[in-house]
Amino acid sequence: MTIADRWLLPDGMDEVLPPQASRMEELRRALLDLYHCWGYDQVMPPPAEFLDSLLTGTGTDLDLQTFKLTDQLTGRMMGATADVTPQVARMDAHSLRREGPVRLCYCTSVMRASADQYQGGRSPVQVGVELFGHAGLEADGEIIHLALESLIAAGAGEMHLALGHIGIYRSLVEAAALDGDQERALFAALALKSPTQIAREVERSVTDPALADMLIALGELHGDADVLGRARAAFAGAPATVTAALDDLDALQRGVRARFDVSLYFDLAELRGYQYHTGMMFAAYVPGFGYALAKGGRYDDTGRAFGRARPATGFSMDLKQLATLASATPRSGAILAPADADDTLRDVVTALRRQGERVIQALPGQRTGLVDHGCDRQLELIDGRWQPTTLTQETSA
Amino acid sequence: MTIADRWLLPDGMDEVLPPQASRMEELRRALLDLYHCWGYDQVMPPPAEFLDSLLTGTGTDLDLQTFKLTDQLTGRMMGATADVTPQVARMDAHSLRREGPVRLCYCTSVMRASADQYQGGRSPVQVGVELFGHAGLEADGEIIHLALESLIAAGAGEMHLALGHIGIYRSLVEAAALDGDQERALFAALALKSPTQIAREVERSVTDPALADMLIALGELHGDADVLGRARAAFAGAPATVTAALDDLDALQRGVRARFDVSLYFDLAELRGYQYHTGMMFAAYVPGFGYALAKGGRYDDTGRAFGRARPATGFSMDLKQLATLASATPRSGAILAPADADDTLRDVVTALRRQGERVIQALPGQRTGLVDHGCDRQLELIDGRWQPTTLTQETSA
Repeated sequence: MTIADRWLLPDGMDEVLPPQASRMEELRRALLDLYHCWGYDQVMPPPAEFLDSLLTGTGTDLDLQTFKLTDQLTGRMMGATADVTPQVARMDAHSLRREGPVRLCYCTSVMRASADQYQGGRSPVQVGVELFGHAGLEADGEIIHLALESLIAAGAGEMHLALGHIGIYRSLVEAAALDGDQERALFAALALKSPTQIAREVERSVTDPALADMLIALGELHGDADVLGRARAAFAGAPATVTAALDDLDALQRGVRARFDVSLYFDLAELRGYQYHTGMMFAAYVPGFGYALAKGGRYDDTGRAFGRARPATGFSMDLKQLATLASATPRSGAILAPADADDTLRDVVTALRRQGERVIQALPGQRTGLVDHGCDRQLELIDGRWQPTTLTQETSA
Repeated sequence: MTIADRWLLPDGMDEVLPPQASRMEELRRALLDLYHCWGYDQVMPPPAEFLDSLLTGTGTDLDLQTFKLTDQLTGRMMGATADVTPQVARMDAHSLRREGPVRLCYCTSVMRASADQYQGGRSPVQVGVELFGHAGLEADGEIIHLALESLIAAGAGEMHLALGHIGIYRSLVEAAALDGDQERALFAALALKSPTQIAREVERSVTDPALADMLIALGELHGDADVLGRARAAFAGAPATVTAALDDLDALQRGVRARFDVSLYFDLAELRGYQYHTGMMFAAYVPGFGYALAKGGRYDDTGRAFGRARPATGFSMDLKQLATLASATPRSGAILAPADADDTLRDVVTALRRQGERVIQALPGQRTGLVDHGCDRQLELIDGRWQPTTLTQETSA
């Protein structure tokens, strides 16, 4: 083992150095304060749970992304948290057991076994909100609103919002009575957005010609606002749940347009990267980032596994990505205090720190000076009083 | 798998619910702000690293406490972070490479494979500071000072500080030329503070009668300030490094006494729970807690494994434990806004939130009211204006 090998960090397991770590801390505070003002209470999930509860009702993608650990106390398998949302759903269903709407938020480091093109590195700091106990569009609207407010708080200017609804695809697949294999093959074809493959899978599995047409149309239903109109035409004979989903998307987009200057995009066949969703789904983009900075939607079924089915909607972001949107606002400089055991100096230093000033005490023999430590002032004894004096040139302490 | 099983969290892997999570967030901010004012820059280590770098120079205790993971990208073994200090030492030695004193702080969730009687649960939120690049007592003094300030910030009243110095034990063992097995047996006897076992191990391994007396005396050298005087007598003929260590402890205790009203305790044979230390070591206690709330010391050797030996001293705490010291100061209540799509209401809500007020928007059909959501006011339309009115009884929204 060479020294260079020891230095190497696993791919996607990143450390954050100054000043970027301060920028992340600043944004963490701004976001949690924003969520507080909207009525969201903070929770902190454990860094690992038993695999059975962690992966209940979440699908295979999350399973593949979860690091497995053996709990040496019980011999049971645990998983390191790869996605906080199912943990928060467990807290709502089991630990809190409150009636009515429950609003929760969190900001915590998670670990992923594999890097995912939709989610960035393997060590995101996941920050997000979840709203439980209300099945209405108002809850979904609040969540989308808060996601866009979060991006604005992080410094986003131009934003793009993609809206979808898993209910359309699910309703059509259910009406077509596809079995598991057929459904997976169609899902994969839709994920590739390949008209040829979609047509082939539909031809192979769907006997009802009207449903076949609708599933083929679904693959084309992405684009700007006219998608909803095209969808209404294409799904005229579809189950009522499809029409209801289109009504929902229409109401949501009107709410967003009324409040935000954001470009809207619809993709009714976008299914990738959503692990446990049951209703509307959204992703918010900012130019210059090749992935969604905020992602969320409705997931009404997760609580069921814990004995208390609750409507749920929410979104999450990676604070590491988000903090790169804007540069850090440097905190005001620092004052270097000489390495001196003088009692009066000590009191002056204490008083300055209480006022919020950053005071760095030089250490005896220290040969690095003001600039190395980001100091723009130093304490000097003038007329018998310790006073901060502004300095521009490098001074040895 | 019953539903009840799914609810179970692994022993020591705790979730934190409201309002305790807010209390932790509040304390996290207070501590990081305190460290900022002292010149410490925040860093965020990754949640897992390759085992080789994570455990370099840290001893077997940390190895046993580290969850092992296979990195599926490289096939190499990784460890989930169980102790942040070696990671920060790597950052200083390799990533930052700054000259002169470097002050770093962090606050991050870690995972431990086994619960440790000295360190609490298996999912602490480790918060602490490290000062690299200065070998002097002034650096150690700053670290102890900051540890006590941290406890005060967390709400501690009465505090006890235990001081020790691994150099005394190490110098005596080196002078006695013990081999690995002999040293481990003596270490175990000292850890048990058993005079009989210590005497037996010394008799078995130490040939020099003066050194034998000193090692036996070491086991008795714990108690209040007179310990240093007794140690000077017992170690009169000891290597100069022992005398130097006693001088250091004496200077440190004088510094602490000058600034804090804290009861001091010395234990020159306390070796347990310190994994990589090379000099002075300390632990700070608060009545009512059966374990140290802050623990730290000097560890000059850790950077060497990364090609850049740097003096280092620091301490850490568990934010989860620390946040139980004082109860949360409840943030001022909240305002319930009716479930109404009124544009004027929306503007009023936005303005109140911008002022820092917590405004919870009721959701249509919501049957829980003000009290359930911690609201002490609600927005009412009075004379054509939306105004917050104080309410004491439960009102349905």
